[in-house]
Parts: sequence; C-alpha cells; structure tokens
Amino acid sequence: MACNPRISLALLRRARAPAPFARASRTLRPATQLRLASTTAEAHQHDPTDTSKAAPSPPKGISFTTEKYPQLQRDSRFAKLTEEHVNYFKDLLGKDSAVIDGVSQDATDDIEPFNSDWMRKFRGHTKLVLKPGSTEEVSKVLKYCNDNMLAVVPQGGNSGLVGGSVPVFDEIVINTARMNQIRSFDEASGIFVADAGVILETADSYLQERNHIFPLDLGAKGSCQIGGNVSTNAGGLRLLRYGSLHGNVLGIEAVLPDGTIVDDLSKLRKNNTGYDLKQLFIGAEGTIGIVTGISIICPQKPQAVNVAFFGVESYEKLQRAFRDAKGYLSEVLSAFELMDGSSQQVVNSVTGKKHPLEGEYPFYCLIETNGSNSEHDAAKLEAFLEHAMSEEIVADGVLAQDETQMRTLWSWREGITECLGHWGGVYKYDLSIPLSDLYQLVEDTRERLNSAGVIGDDPEKHPVVTVVGYGHMGDSNLHLNISTRRFDKEVEQLLEPFVYEWVAKRNGSISAEHGLGLTKKPFIGYSRSDTMIGLMKQIKNLYDPKGIMNPYKYI
Amino acid sequence: MACNPRISLALLRRARAPAPFARASRTLRPATQLRLASTTAEAHQHDPTDTSKAAPSPPKGISFTTEKYPQLQRDSRFAKLTEEHVNYFKDLLGKDSAVIDGVSQDATDDIEPFNSDWMRKFRGHTKLVLKPGSTEEVSKVLKYCNDNMLAVVPQGGNSGLVGGSVPVFDEIVINTARMNQIRSFDEASGIFVADAGVILETADSYLQERNHIFPLDLGAKGSCQIGGNVSTNAGGLRLLRYGSLHGNVLGIEAVLPDGTIVDDLSKLRKNNTGYDLKQLFIGAEGTIGIVTGISIICPQKPQAVNVAFFGVESYEKLQRAFRDAKGYLSEVLSAFELMDGSSQQVVNSVTGKKHPLEGEYPFYCLIETNGSNSEHDAAKLEAFLEHAMSEEIVADGVLAQDETQMRTLWSWREGITECLGHWGGVYKYDLSIPLSDLYQLVEDTRERLNSAGVIGDDPEKHPVVTVVGYGHMGDSNLHLNISTRRFDKEVEQLLEPFVYEWVAKRNGSISAEHGLGLTKKPFIGYSRSDTMIGLMKQIKNLYDPKGIMNPYKYI
Repeated sequence: MACNPRISLALLRRARAPAPFARASRTLRPATQLRLASTTAEAHQHDPTDTSKAAPSPPKGISFTTEKYPQLQRDSRFAKLTEEHVNYFKDLLGKDSAVIDGVSQDATDDIEPFNSDWMRKFRGHTKLVLKPGSTEEVSKVLKYCNDNMLAVVPQGGNSGLVGGSVPVFDEIVINTARMNQIRSFDEASGIFVADAGVILETADSYLQERNHIFPLDLGAKGSCQIGGNVSTNAGGLRLLRYGSLHGNVLGIEAVLPDGTIVDDLSKLRKNNTGYDLKQLFIGAEGTIGIVTGISIICPQKPQAVNVAFFGVESYEKLQRAFRDAKGYLSEVLSAFELMDGSSQQVVNSVTGKKHPLEGEYPFYCLIETNGSNSEHDAAKLEAFLEHAMSEEIVADGVLAQDETQMRTLWSWREGITECLGHWGGVYKYDLSIPLSDLYQLVEDTRERLNSAGVIGDDPEKHPVVTVVGYGHMGDSNLHLNISTRRFDKEVEQLLEPFVYEWVAKRNGSISAEHGLGLTKKPFIGYSRSDTMIGLMKQIKNLYDPKGIMNPYKYI
Repeated sequence: MACNPRISLALLRRARAPAPFARASRTLRPATQLRLASTTAEAHQHDPTDTSKAAPSPPKGISFTTEKYPQLQRDSRFAKLTEEHVNYFKDLLGKDSAVIDGVSQDATDDIEPFNSDWMRKFRGHTKLVLKPGSTEEVSKVLKYCNDNMLAVVPQGGNSGLVGGSVPVFDEIVINTARMNQIRSFDEASGIFVADAGVILETADSYLQERNHIFPLDLGAKGSCQIGGNVSTNAGGLRLLRYGSLHGNVLGIEAVLPDGTIVDDLSKLRKNNTGYDLKQLFIGAEGTIGIVTGISIICPQKPQAVNVAFFGVESYEKLQRAFRDAKGYLSEVLSAFELMDGSSQQVVNSVTGKKHPLEGEYPFYCLIETNGSNSEHDAAKLEAFLEHAMSEEIVADGVLAQDETQMRTLWSWREGITECLGHWGGVYKYDLSIPLSDLYQLVEDTRERLNSAGVIGDDPEKHPVVTVVGYGHMGDSNLHLNISTRRFDKEVEQLLEPFVYEWVAKRNGSISAEHGLGLTKKPFIGYSRSDTMIGLMKQIKNLYDPKGIMNPYKYI
C-alpha cells in the first residue's frame, strides 16, 4: 500500500509553527522518530509485535481441558475410535499426510498441535486427525462419522480464543489445511472464490496483486483460514469500513453431518431466490456442518493508506475523537482502535520497545484511513488533526510516513493480545457495550480486583498482573483482558458472573466477535433470551440430529 | 443534501474550451438547460417521474389471480372464514379501523386495495383484512390463525413486483400499516430501531433530520414499509455503496405462526452469540413469520451528493465507464445505473418530458456520488469526466447543479418502471447476470420477439410495445421488461422458459432483488439446486409446519 508522505510533511511544517502545535507535549511527531528497541529474540521466540508472522505452534505441557472443566462429561452416545475406523479413513484419504493416526500407533508429537491451542488454554484427547483434500472427501468423512456416531471437531487455523476448534475428549479433528486452493477471482466484480483452508494472508496477498483486498483483516491473518473466519464470523480491524461477513460473503459451500453438500457458492451480488441459508453457517462455529468453500465480494485496494496514533487524556475525549473522526474522515475512516494505558505498558514491558509517544496517557487510539486519492485523504486527515489538536481532544500524536511505520504503529495495537500471555494465562472477554459505557467496565473490574487484593507484583500473593482494555471502538467492541500469572479460582469467581451481569444490564453482548466455543457456552443466557436459545437448539437439531458436530460447545 | 455547484462550473469552463469538449454532441451541459415538459396530469394521475409520491392505489377491474393461474387450487386443509372468527379478531383488535370485515358485511370497496396490486397484475379473494397495532397483537392473531388453520398473507406497503403480498384465494391479509412507530435512534452509533410498518421515506426523513440516512433507497420509498423491505431483502439504488440488508440489519423482531415472538432486536454491531437466525427472515417474504420490528445501522448523511447522466454508444463502452467510475470515484461512488435507449423513449413518450440529453444513444447511465467533502468529490468526478470524455467512453453528459436537477435526472431512471405499464401490462424479469453478458439478454429477447412478429405499433396484431433493459449495473442486476398491450399466451411462451434458461446457462439468478412471490415460484430450479430447495423446504416446515404463512408462493 502506498503511504502518503505529504501529510506528515504538512504536519511537520505546522508542528514548527507557533501555538497551538508548538507545545512540546502536544506536538505531532513523524513516526520515524521512534526508537525501536532491539527485540530479545531468545526470550520471545515469536515476536508478538511482528504481525507478519504466523501464530506460534502450541507449546507442550498444557493441562487437559477435561481437568480444567471437570463438570464436562464425555457423551456416552459417541462411539470410541477403533482401528477399523482408522483404516476406513486411510483407505478413503489415501495420502499418509492426510491421516495422523494415534489409534493404531503412538503419534503424540504429531497430534499435539491439533489437540491444543496457542494460548495454552485448551487441550483435548484426540487420537485422530483427518485432513481431507476436497469437499467430496469431507462429505464421505462426515457421513461415515455420522453413521458411526463418531464425534468431530472442524479445525481451520486453530487461532480462536474460545476453544472452539480444539477437541475436548476424543473427537476426531477434521482439519481443512489441505483444502487450500483459490478457485476463481473476477476483477470486474471483485468476487473471489476459494477453498475454506486458504490462509487469510494468502488470500489477501493474492488479491492485493490484483488491485483488491480481502474485506477482513485481523492479527492472526498469517495462520487463520478463511473458512474459519466465516465459521466464526470474524470481525477484525476494518469492519467499520468494509462491513461484516454477513454482508460480504456471497456464497458458501458446506457439508452437513449426513454428507449432504450445501452447494450455495453463488458468485452473484444479489440472489433473492429463497431463504439465505448460507447465513446460518456464518458464525455457526462448525456445529451444523463444515464450510469447505466461500465466495466473497472484495473491495478495490485502497490507493492511499494513512495511520495515526494518539494519546488522549480521558475517555470522554476519546469518545469525542471518535465522533469527530467519523465526521471529518467519513468514507475513508477504516479503523478506530482503542488501547488503554495499561495495554501499552504491557507491550512495552514484554517487547522492550519504545512507545511511539513520549508521554504516558490513560488512553491511546489508532486511526487508519483507506482511500482512493492520497491528496484528498491527506487533506481530510489534516483537517481532523488540526481540529483535534486545537480543540485539545488529543494530547499528542504521530503519523506514519511509510509502510514500515504503519506496521510499527499497528504493532502497538495488534501485539497486545500475545504480550498479555507473557506471565501465564489471560482471562479474555470480548464484549459489545454501548459506547458511552464501554470503558467503565475496565475501571469497575480493575477496582473489583484491586479491592480483593489480587493484583500486584508479588508472584506469591498476586495472581493478577494487570487489567487492560482495548478493542474496536468503531464497533463498540471492547476486549477486556486480565493478565495473570496462573489461572486462579478466586480471580475467576471475582470475574464471573460479574462481567457478564455487568454487560447484560447494558444490553450488550458477551461475545462480540470471538464466538461462544467452549468458554462462553454457559453464558449465552446473558445475551440471548430463552426463546432465542430454544430456536437455536431447533436449528442445531435440524442439521445435526445426532449431535456429532463440535460437541460440548456453542449452545 | 447539499449539491456542489463547483463541479458544474468547472465543467462549463471546460465545455467552452477547445477539443475534446468543444464538439456540440459531446459537450457536457449543466442540467439546468433541461426543458421540462409540463406533466399531463389528467392522463396520468400519478406522475411516474415524480419519485416523491407514494405508489397509486390499485385500480379496479383487475382479473383474479385464480383466473390467470387456473392451475392454482385452494388448499383444502385451510378453514373457511366464519363470523365467529371475525368476531374473535374484532374483540382482539378493538378499533374498527383495525378490521375490514367482508365476511359478515359487504366491504368490497374497502377491501379492494388490499386484494390487488398497483401493477394491476394480481387480485385475491380475501374477505378479511387485519391491522394489528402491536407485536403482541400480531402474536395473538397468528396463534389463532395457526390453531384454526386460517391461511394468512403478511402485507406491508404492497409495492412488490411478484405478487408476494397479495392474497390468492381467501387468505386473511395481516397488514402492518398501524405498526408505524420509530422506537429509538442513537446518533453516536447510527443505530435505528422501528416498527415494521414505518414507511421507508418516513424513516429516511427522520434520519436525515438527524444527519443520517436509511441505508436503502428505492423508487417505491413513498409507500413501501421497512418491514417489507427487510422481508423481501430489497436491494435498491445504493447497494453498491451501502451494502445489503444482510449486512446492515442488526436485529429483527418477528412473530412465528405459533405466536412465538422472536426477540432478536439487537442494537449491537457485533454479537457472536449463536446462529444468526434473523438472517432467515431477511428475504423470507413472510413465509415463516411476520417481521414486526427492525434494528438497522445507518450511515451518516453525505455532505456532498452529485448526479451525472451520460449517453454511451455501446455496451462495451458502458462496461468501461463502470470499471473506470469504480477506479476514479471509488469510495464515493453510490450508484451506477444502466438505462437503454428504449427505456428512455418509453419515459419520454409517456410523460412528454424532454430528455436531459439532446442526441439519442443506445445506452445511458446515471452516476451518483455520496461523500463527505464536496471539493474532493467534485475533483474526483471531474477527473473521471475528463477521462471519460477524452477517451470517448461517454458521448454526451449532463451534471446536476442542484437538488431539483438531481431529482429530474433520477426520474429518468426511477420513472421507467411505472411508465412501462402505460399500455397495459408488463412482463418483468429481475435478473443477476455476469456483467459481460448482461445486456445480451435484452438483445436476444428483442430479436426473439421480433422474429415472431409480436412487437409493433398495430394494437390488433402486436401485443408487445417494446422490450427494454435497465437496472443496477453496479450490482450486475438487469431489469428486463417487456411492455405489452395485453397479457398474451404466445408472448408468454416465447419468454418462458427462454429467459430463465438463458440466465441459468450463465449461472445467474432468476430473481436478483424482487424475490419469488407468486410469479417466480415455479422457476426457482433455474437458480437453485434440488439440494438447496430441499433444505429450504426443511426450514419452511420447521417454522410453519401447518403451511398457513403466505401459501401458494415462494418455494
């Protein structure tokens, strides 16, 4: 993406001029002035602020999900895997690499990455991983499983945050990694069709070479798969600009548990011929079928991209900054991300990097624009900056001058998730809350944990390291994260149901974009009525009457 | 909406300069130069080019749908209405105006507008119209109907084009007109919540006063209701810019036939807690329940709106104009509408108005921009115009200088539908076709009817007046319309299944945005596989096992 040096030059000129830009604490500095600390590669094999890398392989020694959630019982209706089953799959899928067999042989090392997740939070007991290479193979695999009452877990890039793609007991993992072909792209319409197992970043790079972009972007883009993105209705960084998958996905190919292939892979922007069934698979988290292909409309690649990063003195001012950014930047505003001071301290202390801004502020925001005309976008951004500085809405800010600086600024937002795991585990809440109340939850949670004396520096006495809030302010979507040295019953009891009740009182959602998976399943009642839950169960029973699809999760 | 006089001034300056703008036939004229013929109000009580008016009341003397479609048989499982039923509804709904009773008394005149449609194409035999005033009343009405096997037709503004909201036999009409309250609007998030019976134009005006717009606009906005828009998944004029209802609708309140209230009226942009059931109601055409309320995210009102109208010499050039408009106008391009020469002749001959362009062209297109900065939008449009003129992509064009001129230019697009009905009836096809093939269908159809000798000026010999093509080029959505003096079996047999087979061969859709209703029901197989139709029937049976909801239609 081309960046626009003219903005920052213009700002530099202004920055040297007298008030209101002259005061040092409120001067906009170009991001080149950032001193980047060298990364301590030994200490952190995966650099969490390097968003170009895939998520790390899951580490060993994670405790089993069944130990953490002793109330979970294996559903006795499911058959136990036998060598006969395994032989059927080996015959069917042919290639050795398509079947990782832990039944007739010891394949622990090979199976481990599919049995657990990168957060070290979930670990299943699967003994079989299948990697079908086509929709027809998925159909045969599922039909066999359904006929034989074998439970399954569909798995894409396994980068989820709620344990949705990790087995709990001995469910067979059906991994879509081998279904990784791009099927077609039409430059005139922007319609892209591909297998479910295509990595998001691969899809986006392919499209960028053809002057388009994938209408979704998120931190895990190097490892997550587009089928998983659709199955979890991923929101990501630019929903504000490009809209949700419910609007952008034009067609889906999926396989139902009985082997039926749902051939709804439309390449049409409009098709009002009957119920829009594909929508049920968007966000179904693999509980009614496996998505094997998607068709999606992709926007043209923006010719101009700008990224700015601000320090803000209060949440009230941050809200004002957002409202005014919508006004000034309007159609080119592609992201408005919130990061609180604590989240930035975490990234700083884990990576050792110097923060883009010199002073410390209770709030930060990252603003991105995507547009077709760099001059126009620069003018819009400049008008916003001038307004925001002169009205003292923001206290300090930097503006990226090239793509490297853009990535650096984004890393202070995208790196938060992984840095939070530095000390052990993280309690993660992904919430929709009306904007005016959004940050109050972070303060209330921090206060609650402080009062209970569980936050602090003493590893013995204090399980909690810090409470942070960040997220997609443009979508009223808060990520409340509690970074801990260990998972702790007392902390858990302080957090739940407190957080859920707090959100329910404000008619928010207990899962904005991460989904339900295993962890949020018990709490759906805080966001959905009994009627709605009943209707959802009806749908589950309609498509998966035997219940073999991703059991113990969702609803 | 503020218009931007600077664009046209700039263009005028250019227009006076030497080549390539100097040649008279290729000069861009401001739309003020249009001479507007006085409307012949006597001849056309409803001026079809005045888009500010509601659709006209349905005329009398329309033949019954059951006569036109003699193969339709009343489903004998449905009960016949009795005075006892009517009394129940009168007790329940209280107000006299809420029940139009043609059972215990003769209410033909009052009932007629609900029994037929504005196109004079459909006419039912209903004897009872109910106008519940709340979701609870809809729930009680539907439960009673379901318990007593009384078939119903949900009806909003009754402005549909496929007979979906008109009864066929004696189905009870449940009209949502009395449910017309705006429930809430949040300026910070743009989220609007309202009853299903709110008129689209009312909703949009309310929002415009609050610096927002409804993310949908269409010709029937003065009479159609937002619940109907959602139930038919209306596409309209600016889908290109603001996206589909599947992306914009955040929540739905609906009533199932058994009286269950689906309370899914979320006011959150993101909510990944379970299957997105509301999506099933978007485009279900009242076959599984009645939508009673919607929550929708609305964009900010554009500060700058521009409308330009061009004459183009070939379909190849029109495609190029579209591709280049996307490049030059990008994020501000809000509509790219196609009108062929025949469609413009029809509007001209019916309204007597002078066309905005002096010469005649085989193709015309209307381009609209919606943006936040009039100077930037003007510059983008000017760059596009300069490119399109100098490359001879467009042959002539005008640019609106104020809101009146914008409406005038739009009237040459929006007025087509109604003008086509001037001579009698219209065979209407609403199709999605890959862009490169889109207009070929109009030519092939015209050729086919010409060869059969059914097009011409002699009312005795020629049932067909003209074949026209227009539509939303930005969405690959063609409206193929055959304007006739009378509905004619021979013409019908020439058109069907010809049109559907033509579209199916190109993997298009036989209903892009108008839905299935009564007329397209038999043809869904041209756009959907047996598997998909089977899965849709499963959904219908799940929610409406007794089949009382809008029978004889959809799938």
